[in-house]
Amino acid sequence: MSTAIVLLSGGLDSTTVAAVARQQHDRVVALSFRYGQRHSSELAAAQRVAEGLGLHEHRVIDIDLGQLGGSSLTDPELVVPEQQEDGIPNTYVPARNTVFLAFALAVAEVSQADSIYLGINAVDYSGYPDCRPEFVEAFQHLVNVATKATVSGQPIVIKAPLLHLTKADIIRLGVAAGVDYAQTVSCYQADSVGAACGVCDSCRLRQQGFRDAGLTDPTRYWKKN
Amino acid sequence: MSTAIVLLSGGLDSTTVAAVARQQHDRVVALSFRYGQRHSSELAAAQRVAEGLGLHEHRVIDIDLGQLGGSSLTDPELVVPEQQEDGIPNTYVPARNTVFLAFALAVAEVSQADSIYLGINAVDYSGYPDCRPEFVEAFQHLVNVATKATVSGQPIVIKAPLLHLTKADIIRLGVAAGVDYAQTVSCYQADSVGAACGVCDSCRLRQQGFRDAGLTDPTRYWKKN
Repeated sequence: MSTAIVLLSGGLDSTTVAAVARQQHDRVVALSFRYGQRHSSELAAAQRVAEGLGLHEHRVIDIDLGQLGGSSLTDPELVVPEQQEDGIPNTYVPARNTVFLAFALAVAEVSQADSIYLGINAVDYSGYPDCRPEFVEAFQHLVNVATKATVSGQPIVIKAPLLHLTKADIIRLGVAAGVDYAQTVSCYQADSVGAACGVCDSCRLRQQGFRDAGLTDPTRYWKKN
Repeated sequence: MSTAIVLLSGGLDSTTVAAVARQQHDRVVALSFRYGQRHSSELAAAQRVAEGLGLHEHRVIDIDLGQLGGSSLTDPELVVPEQQEDGIPNTYVPARNTVFLAFALAVAEVSQADSIYLGINAVDYSGYPDCRPEFVEAFQHLVNVATKATVSGQPIVIKAPLLHLTKADIIRLGVAAGVDYAQTVSCYQADSVGAACGVCDSCRLRQQGFRDAGLTDPTRYWKKN
């Protein structure tokens, strides 16, 4: 039996990846993190998605990245930008994907999973360093030397199937795999029921993706845009 | 001002590393983890050590590796072995050093630290995959591509100064740097006040180290050995 771990935020990308993993593995364990993000509608979306896709298990892990500060996604003192900025925006959470993948690796090792999926993308993205192909390659190399499973000859494989896709391609892939994007929340400042602002980086990339794919955007917005 | 992060368990190795870092940096932030380990005397030891060495800050981060299971250090159902075993023993905690270093990386990035110290050792050790030189190299490579600091040209350096030292060398280094080893706890099954069993892997390596260094072992034991 083939088991996969999927990092599931409840957003568009990770939901698409979960649907892809569901097609390719007997057993899919979704991992979400309560890491001090501003809103909990993201976790509610992850729960809906995990149920909707019939995933085997959905675990929510508490880690307090908020206490570290440094990001507008976890620090209420910082303002989420509404314009594309030069360089890496303040929505970047320090070492977030490294921390998430490290936990996924621990779960994968205990669950005897052969794969870890994550929905990072280096095309229509916000410029975070830990969303680039070099990052995935470096983490795979780490996995190859870091774990007990590796030592006994079965390396766990890090899979980032969206890495080189446009947002429109991702949406088409997800629709083909049966994803209901109305259930997902991508917005950096979604309200308590998951309605989106329509103006943050993440919303703008998502809106453009639906336009480019020629599909109707099922997202609910709380801000006129 | 130069800042270093040190992973501090309160054991012999990490305490030695903290003392070395204290000599080389203006500011040292120690990180300990409450990760579901069986006893809390380890964290009490880390606190004593941080105070004793005059470190700038000591942070304890809660992460529940225990919920993952798979190790006798976090799962009360599994027995800590009292004999050296073939292969990797059940005291191995899946992906522990990867998870700890991932957090240290986040803290380092936010604190603008230039170095992360950890006390792993590949000579007198228990055979864990994430205590080998390949692991340190792979994590350094990951750091080089994963963080914001790196992108703007200042990579954070992973330092494992004990990697190739014998336990006796480590003890000599620590004594020269002013470490009081009576304050440290290495035992896998220490009691609530930090007294050691004297029979687990970690105790046996420590006892041999003091013998080889020709120094008196200041450890308190609760088991005859």
